[in-house]
Amino acid sequence: MWGNTIGKMFRFTSFGESHGKCIGGVIDGCPSGIEIDFDRIGYELSRRKPKGKFSTTRMEDDVVNIVSGVFEGKTLGTPIMFYVENKAQCSEDYDVLKDAFRPSHADYTYQAKYGIRDHRGGGRASARETVARVVAGCIAKQLLEKYGITITAYTSQIGSVCVDRKWEQLDLSTRDSNPFYCPDVDKAREMKILLETVADNGDTVGGIVTCVLKNCPVGLGEPIFDKLQADLAKAMLSISSVKGFDYGDGFGAASMLGSDSLDLFDSHFATRTNHSGGIQGGISNGEDIVFRVAFKPIASLVKPIAIVDKNGNEK
Amino acid sequence: MWGNTIGKMFRFTSFGESHGKCIGGVIDGCPSGIEIDFDRIGYELSRRKPKGKFSTTRMEDDVVNIVSGVFEGKTLGTPIMFYVENKAQCSEDYDVLKDAFRPSHADYTYQAKYGIRDHRGGGRASARETVARVVAGCIAKQLLEKYGITITAYTSQIGSVCVDRKWEQLDLSTRDSNPFYCPDVDKAREMKILLETVADNGDTVGGIVTCVLKNCPVGLGEPIFDKLQADLAKAMLSISSVKGFDYGDGFGAASMLGSDSLDLFDSHFATRTNHSGGIQGGISNGEDIVFRVAFKPIASLVKPIAIVDKNGNEK
Amino acid sequence: MWGNTIGKMFRFTSFGESHGKCIGGVIDGCPSGIEIDFDRIGYELSRRKPKGKFSTTRMEDDVVNIVSGVFEGKTLGTPIMFYVENKAQCSEDYDVLKDAFRPSHADYTYQAKYGIRDHRGGGRASARETVARVVAGCIAKQLLEKYGITITAYTSQIGSVCVDRKWEQLDLSTRDSNPFYCPDVDKAREMKILLETVADNGDTVGGIVTCVLKNCPVGLGEPIFDKLQADLAKAMLSISSVKGFDYGDGFGAASMLGSDSLDLFDSHFATRTNHSGGIQGGISNGEDIVFRVAFKPIASLVKPIAIVDKNGNEK
Amino acid sequence: MWGNTIGKMFRFTSFGESHGKCIGGVIDGCPSGIEIDFDRIGYELSRRKPKGKFSTTRMEDDVVNIVSGVFEGKTLGTPIMFYVENKAQCSEDYDVLKDAFRPSHADYTYQAKYGIRDHRGGGRASARETVARVVAGCIAKQLLEKYGITITAYTSQIGSVCVDRKWEQLDLSTRDSNPFYCPDVDKAREMKILLETVADNGDTVGGIVTCVLKNCPVGLGEPIFDKLQADLAKAMLSISSVKGFDYGDGFGAASMLGSDSLDLFDSHFATRTNHSGGIQGGISNGEDIVFRVAFKPIASLVKPIAIVDKNGNEK
Repeated sequence: MWGNTIGKMFRFTSFGESHGKCIGGVIDGCPSGIEIDFDRIGYELSRRKPKGKFSTTRMEDDVVNIVSGVFEGKTLGTPIMFYVENKAQCSEDYDVLKDAFRPSHADYTYQAKYGIRDHRGGGRASARETVARVVAGCIAKQLLEKYGITITAYTSQIGSVCVDRKWEQLDLSTRDSNPFYCPDVDKAREMKILLETVADNGDTVGGIVTCVLKNCPVGLGEPIFDKLQADLAKAMLSISSVKGFDYGDGFGAASMLGSDSLDLFDSHFATRTNHSGGIQGGISNGEDIVFRVAFKPIASLVKPIAIVDKNGNEK
Repeated sequence: MWGNTIGKMFRFTSFGESHGKCIGGVIDGCPSGIEIDFDRIGYELSRRKPKGKFSTTRMEDDVVNIVSGVFEGKTLGTPIMFYVENKAQCSEDYDVLKDAFRPSHADYTYQAKYGIRDHRGGGRASARETVARVVAGCIAKQLLEKYGITITAYTSQIGSVCVDRKWEQLDLSTRDSNPFYCPDVDKAREMKILLETVADNGDTVGGIVTCVLKNCPVGLGEPIFDKLQADLAKAMLSISSVKGFDYGDGFGAASMLGSDSLDLFDSHFATRTNHSGGIQGGISNGEDIVFRVAFKPIASLVKPIAIVDKNGNEK
Repeated sequence: MWGNTIGKMFRFTSFGESHGKCIGGVIDGCPSGIEIDFDRIGYELSRRKPKGKFSTTRMEDDVVNIVSGVFEGKTLGTPIMFYVENKAQCSEDYDVLKDAFRPSHADYTYQAKYGIRDHRGGGRASARETVARVVAGCIAKQLLEKYGITITAYTSQIGSVCVDRKWEQLDLSTRDSNPFYCPDVDKAREMKILLETVADNGDTVGGIVTCVLKNCPVGLGEPIFDKLQADLAKAMLSISSVKGFDYGDGFGAASMLGSDSLDLFDSHFATRTNHSGGIQGGISNGEDIVFRVAFKPIASLVKPIAIVDKNGNEK
Repeated sequence: MWGNTIGKMFRFTSFGESHGKCIGGVIDGCPSGIEIDFDRIGYELSRRKPKGKFSTTRMEDDVVNIVSGVFEGKTLGTPIMFYVENKAQCSEDYDVLKDAFRPSHADYTYQAKYGIRDHRGGGRASARETVARVVAGCIAKQLLEKYGITITAYTSQIGSVCVDRKWEQLDLSTRDSNPFYCPDVDKAREMKILLETVADNGDTVGGIVTCVLKNCPVGLGEPIFDKLQADLAKAMLSISSVKGFDYGDGFGAASMLGSDSLDLFDSHFATRTNHSGGIQGGISNGEDIVFRVAFKPIASLVKPIAIVDKNGNEK
């Protein structure tokens, strides 16, 4: 069965292995007449790029090529195909992986499911696959901004360093002032210290991203199975290394009383609090939509790890 | 757009309002020749049923009627339509809700989205909608059990009472020994005390359900968007009152080191630990699949709550 | 795989075997606030009903029950479930068919595909399945008429009796003046004579239905695979006994010259001719949409036919 | 809404405008481990290529590039992206079309639907779009041939020249002996004479293609909406210039008697005749599957045609 397409109205199909020629995608259903800001896509790709010693060592400048669906700078309403070349394809580095299964990677499950795999890096399971999501997402954002809708994600936790203040109390525009995309500068400083220590040990660490959507109109989301939170959860859990999703009060709601979590209306049907996270009954209610996404530490450590070969022997 | 269908191979469409004639569904894609155990469906429906003062006061015996797709006790491979009647339809009780929006309910968002709603209770937004999920789920479970796959969910937290032991350390078969479906009898006792206090105050409280899937074959899940965890997250978040989903180490992974969360292989490609929660790269790896689902306290309190009418005035 | 759902925005799932309890369906995606004319559905069901000796002998009054999705006479935007009871379920009549395969029926292919079948009549393969299409179609028509769109189908050929005049030259409102739904009364008389002879011989005969859609707005149809004519063709070929579909010049276009088949524009972008059948490039152009559907003679003859049993022996 | 994807298990998404950089597609759901014969794809692309004066004058060698999903010559089970460059992009030739609507083309409907179009040729509405279908189709054929299934299409009519013999009486292997792909050499000679006359007049003419599938297993097709013939009809009607589809007796069945069109079984459940065209009840029955596709004459004449501009004035 197929699984490389997401979305109903704005429908995105992804392709490309991490060490093949390119990563890309096709968007079907993007309205016509939208002017595409290519620099903006380039900027978002540079934000995606691993940041030196704070993450993986792979460094490449990603440039998007839009091949179809855009004519004289505007979308045609026809499928938009784009790709980004993979420059760092030093395949020889990866020969050691040919018959090896790294722990907590997808090497073994891909081999078992498909009977074959592109062993040069993670193939489709590599986080490099997100390149295509960034491009498609940036086009989607340009479309949504025509309706005033904005999407802002920031790092709210790395390891034990946790931003305590809620999103309403933060100045999200300061997010890009540090390589951790954290709008709390004190916490960003602590994150840096933590990450330096972790990196010095050849280790990695997990974290949490918080995402805020502003100005969503009332009425988005299709009960009962395509509730807005259900589609958001699916999209987030489809990202490599993501282990959890919650919205509004989230997991915290489990220990709350009903009387402490009601969002009372004011006389204009706005709510005075936002325990609901902007969604009631699966439908946006006009308040900010807020959700969190938990990432595990990436499993590609610099320190040696125990790899088994295809016969189950440790290498 | 439509949103009342879920699933690809085993495809389930739900229908029915909480205070209409019935709740039901159509299953398309169920293999032919499966013997259906109707008593089993009845048993699962009775487990779903609200339990006296520990939850809502609505009490009814739910009986499933299978109308098509089953012939002489076996599935035909054609669509299975089933329904469960709504007996407690005292609509007059609900007239007060006609022009009212209850806080943290879906009254307002449904009205805004559709311009009309069945005000007698929550309509499609009512938790009674899960009746159809229980029936379809029970048929799915009977199908999966032919392959040895079992699915067991239990209550792991209510309010501040939290089962500390992991699922491997619990005897899940004791789950049904108490009305809270908690396999830790000491914790079940604490839950009872907590819920009695909460109920006495006319209040409600949240909780967490943990679910364990055993004997899943290696290879389930379709990267990259239909990863197994992504489909599970979507299904769980589509349930009323659910605020969060995580699997394996889940949100806990955010504060872990990579070196502490690797699942090393043994020589048969089983893993010695299960931080991954049975899924790697979006594909089941043969280990137990474990996920958690967080519920907010239900918003229908016995104590008075502030309702606004369609003009925004408090009633 | 599932195949009992059709449609994208207005999504219809059908269920029910011909000799089970009922035939019905679920419509998901019908807009809210539409007033449903139930009498109209009853009228269309009576038009569907076999007409005495001119077709099969099964006679029953079909009454629709709408179970969900409609509240106080108006659609809620939630799934509309409806069913029509099967009254003529004299199953004993069909015991002879238990281990028999009738020629040019679906008995053999269903048995081979599913390994089991409801042998009491054709099950899902029976033309009685169209009861659900008539109901869903009538609701769709009521919706379309709000936009001025009308759909009129008539019999343009039975056996060798063929209506020569094109649809523009016929008064389609006279269609229901005869049991053959033929707007050419002279031809209807010939059809009657032909059908009486055929029926006297215990035989059946094929025919063609022509369908005209008026007032479709410009712009319907989604290139390149969901072209308007492609979706129409799929819908028509999914009806039992249908063997062909064409639109505009249709099969006649195969022997035409390009210069004789151009639809020249007038100065308001209307076309002076309609060889295109109202669709250009897969998208409606505002002209009448015209297509034909060819039916084979039904294979259930009154005269004896050679049936084989499950061992391949003639009965 | 999107419409550029077709298929359920083997899912194909097409992209590219006729005068953009390239035409291509993404296949999702192709099984892993299939060896792809690239020469075969090249051969099929050369068969698709317009043939000199007998069709349009555009000549180009089409070469396929497979970018992802294939590793060391074999499919990975991941999305296969491929493209074919458009070499003949002399856009200046097309400037005359910028504000013009050609009759019986899609210029007007695309402009009306999308509010913008790539006026350099037909964009997505150009027959050049079929390049992507040929590549995807050739990969599908290589997959099907592993199961012994073959697909052979031939020209059975051009204008008034019609192959009278049925497919069983023809030697289909001679099909490629003439540029008309007609296995009846006498008729091919007549077609040549006809086409030369038509071309000399700057005109075009329609035709019919007959397609035969051999060795399909019993059981393909998903009642009731995804009947095998319904999916075939949709696929065929999605091709530019196609005006009709029928299978088995097709439109001829309309004038036949039931007693003349029964396919009696032999003792092995094969049928002695094949009026059904290999499909009964929407499910393949193991006989040859035979269908016809009617094409209108292409509307791009060499002789002058009346074009209107965007103001409705004849140019």
